[in-house]
Amino acid sequence: MRIAVDAMGGDRAPAVVVQGALQAALRWGLDVILVGDRKAIADELGHDADGVPVSVHHCEERVLMHEAPLKALRRKKRASIKVAFELLKSGQADAVVSAGNSGATLAAAILTLGRLKGIERPALVGILPGEKGPVLLTDVGANVDSRPEHLFQFGVMADAFAASCLGMEAPKIGLLSIGEENGKGSGQVRMAFELFQASALNFVGNVEGRDILTGEVQIVVCDGFVGNVALKLGEGIVDASTRMLKRELMSSMTGRAGLWFGRRSFEKLKKKLDYAEYGGAPILGIRGLGIVCHGGSSPKAITNAVGTAARYAEEDIPGRLAACMTDCQARIDGLRVSEQRP
Amino acid sequence: MRIAVDAMGGDRAPAVVVQGALQAALRWGLDVILVGDRKAIADELGHDADGVPVSVHHCEERVLMHEAPLKALRRKKRASIKVAFELLKSGQADAVVSAGNSGATLAAAILTLGRLKGIERPALVGILPGEKGPVLLTDVGANVDSRPEHLFQFGVMADAFAASCLGMEAPKIGLLSIGEENGKGSGQVRMAFELFQASALNFVGNVEGRDILTGEVQIVVCDGFVGNVALKLGEGIVDASTRMLKRELMSSMTGRAGLWFGRRSFEKLKKKLDYAEYGGAPILGIRGLGIVCHGGSSPKAITNAVGTAARYAEEDIPGRLAACMTDCQARIDGLRVSEQRP
Repeated sequence: MRIAVDAMGGDRAPAVVVQGALQAALRWGLDVILVGDRKAIADELGHDADGVPVSVHHCEERVLMHEAPLKALRRKKRASIKVAFELLKSGQADAVVSAGNSGATLAAAILTLGRLKGIERPALVGILPGEKGPVLLTDVGANVDSRPEHLFQFGVMADAFAASCLGMEAPKIGLLSIGEENGKGSGQVRMAFELFQASALNFVGNVEGRDILTGEVQIVVCDGFVGNVALKLGEGIVDASTRMLKRELMSSMTGRAGLWFGRRSFEKLKKKLDYAEYGGAPILGIRGLGIVCHGGSSPKAITNAVGTAARYAEEDIPGRLAACMTDCQARIDGLRVSEQRP
Repeated sequence: MRIAVDAMGGDRAPAVVVQGALQAALRWGLDVILVGDRKAIADELGHDADGVPVSVHHCEERVLMHEAPLKALRRKKRASIKVAFELLKSGQADAVVSAGNSGATLAAAILTLGRLKGIERPALVGILPGEKGPVLLTDVGANVDSRPEHLFQFGVMADAFAASCLGMEAPKIGLLSIGEENGKGSGQVRMAFELFQASALNFVGNVEGRDILTGEVQIVVCDGFVGNVALKLGEGIVDASTRMLKRELMSSMTGRAGLWFGRRSFEKLKKKLDYAEYGGAPILGIRGLGIVCHGGSSPKAITNAVGTAARYAEEDIPGRLAACMTDCQARIDGLRVSEQRP
């Protein structure tokens, strides 16, 4: 598997990205193509890459974290994120991983590869550590101000992804709202509720913030604004409470003993809750495989994202998703027809 | 201080509410007025209330948790939540506490007491345990589909509340979004950003989900939909990770030792993060003092909410907030005038 990594994207790129990608190449023998400035990448690689299946695809430009995505892509024809997706399009890579400007990553993916038939808005799906196994949260930031039918499409795509990629059979889908009863929530959510209810999906109704991690549903659908806030809040809480617990334990003799005896359990849980273990968020709804990582990703997070990308590519996830979406598309169309009936 | 408690509101009302309110009366010698069905309340009280300053204000009706707020209040003129606010209005109570239908609580407060001058949409403010002290999150569920000027008013009210009630001087205010740069976020947030930036508030710009608890800002402003999801997700994560950690520790001998040695630290942190300790969310922007608790509140949460209500009433928080808002109103008006300039 050949994974194109946007070496220039991320808060601490290229250093952190190159380190993480190199680890993935070392650990799993993956062909990693680092896309970006040859010299900057070479400086990071040093002699560490000797004998490792890492190559560099040079390009001069990059989209910075704060740039307006479309504007930047229009101006910078040879931006690393764009070139990475072009490698995928031309068959020189099997997947793209980027920790850069996520709006630009999305836009480059859509412009270069195109959307799956019937999908208006590709979405990012976050894979969260639920109490009873993984929970898919979508959208986690690709779309703000989504319309109800976009929310519905996010659900359809996540359902296809869960079934074809994670082996979940008829995963339960919940619509994120602020009350469990139908009729509660924003106008957007109330209309999306109707669409889901009229569909053949395994829709269980509204769920609330506190239900996201319990595992009662496997897919939680929301607007990208809400999903992004939720995802980052979740990470923030895990980080903050870990720090608070450690400080609390370190402040007394018995606490320090507790920390010592419990250290293996703490590490296990930390690993379970650490988003760096989860390998980024796949883009659903495009003709190919792209994975978006946090701008602030650690090398470990990049390594895992590259590993995940390789695994999905190996299993032909994009192909399976596209096949599944044809069927889903028929379902959406069916719904539209039935909506239009008098 | 006389606190009117909606005895019929909450998932497990009146039992849990009566227990919690009784505890508050016992612990702090507060005058608690339980508003609701005389017989149902008497059954819960038994002889526990003998000699305790608890009275019952009878009314037959109640708004159920799933009812549409305005419709229910129109039909049920003698609903407990409405009667509770009438007691406040007529001077028979100093504050109202309710764990019932939060939409109905808000609507009853607004209909009975009225809004503060210049405030279009009263808001709920959640007081969260940040790493560096309390963090105010507003709105946490009173308003969905807020307009940009509503978000701005939430900020103004929270600023007044923080200054007059929590002794925070010029608290830092952040606008919850999905990127720190101005220009990121939904249309609603981008416009609110302009309003905040043009104001005299101590506005620091956009903050992200992961910044809510770090304590870098003391006030986080968002739409009620997003705030409610965030609040409940936060509680859900704390609950879930506590359970996961306990399970992990209990699964090995050394883990159990860790749990035993660390137990005091665990309890301290649990207390710190437990929303039941935080006494509900005050309603900002009404002419009086109302506190909204979770529908699923424990007796302890009710007890703390009643205690908080009494403390705020004692310190004349509604009066101070109203006074502060006059000043804030001038600021909003000033902003409007300056907006209209060519």
